[in-house]
Amino acid sequence: MSRLESHIRRCQAQCACIERAAELMSELPGPVLELGLGNGRTYSHIREHLPDREIYVFDRQIAAHPDCIPDDDHIFLGEITETLPWAVERFAGTIPLVHVDLGPEVIREIAAQIPSLLCPGGIAATQAEAETEGLVSLELPEGVAPGRYFLYRAD
Amino acid sequence: MSRLESHIRRCQAQCACIERAAELMSELPGPVLELGLGNGRTYSHIREHLPDREIYVFDRQIAAHPDCIPDDDHIFLGEITETLPWAVERFAGTIPLVHVDLGPEVIREIAAQIPSLLCPGGIAATQAEAETEGLVSLELPEGVAPGRYFLYRAD
Repeated sequence: MSRLESHIRRCQAQCACIERAAELMSELPGPVLELGLGNGRTYSHIREHLPDREIYVFDRQIAAHPDCIPDDDHIFLGEITETLPWAVERFAGTIPLVHVDLGPEVIREIAAQIPSLLCPGGIAATQAEAETEGLVSLELPEGVAPGRYFLYRAD
Repeated sequence: MSRLESHIRRCQAQCACIERAAELMSELPGPVLELGLGNGRTYSHIREHLPDREIYVFDRQIAAHPDCIPDDDHIFLGEITETLPWAVERFAGTIPLVHVDLGPEVIREIAAQIPSLLCPGGIAATQAEAETEGLVSLELPEGVAPGRYFLYRAD
């Protein structure tokens, strides 16, 4: 498989997992967190599927398409290892969905803090494995190969 | 449509157009040119569909995945507006396929030089419109929306 095909499958997995996550948390109130804004494509997809939610984004710097940059009140700039403890304090137990679009090593490093953000039944959709106490692994949508994306529910 | 979905369609158009172009030029000898290596995904796809061809890449700098970087003899670094005239001289009329993965303005700027690279019947697949004398526009593969990609044959 070429890198172009593999990239398409990864993007399709993002679409499918964001949509599944949005369904799973649709009855839970509260804002959504996007850890890692990047080019803003997943932010755009989350916004399209959850048009009435506040979305807070976290990243080192803003490098997204202008369409995909939230207002200043919804951006938290800095190393995620520094901004996340603060987010845990501010949002503790109130978040129905966190989407984690960071590298595998960073995800491993921050995984243990994710359950403290989530409300009961809240969902985490992550680009890499985030096994940790307090998160139960969920089945992936059809067509998403195991290991391509990860879905969890707060225990 | 979210930016993520739109990006997927663009990548699918790249796949389909590269595959169509590879079919169309399969009987024509000569090396392939990739103008704009970028992350190397389309290079990877071209290589997969034309495993026996030499592929020369042109870019300002190399920022591709290590898997997608050709050897030094097949890389031409520099502004395309400076390297292309040289390529036209070296490869004049011998290229069966040129894939142009550059911005729309750059493509407009260099379009007039593309026919001089191509052998008779040679194919140009481009990210943006490259209307110019000596190139005949070709039908896009099924499923590729008009304007998402462009295919031309040397007149």
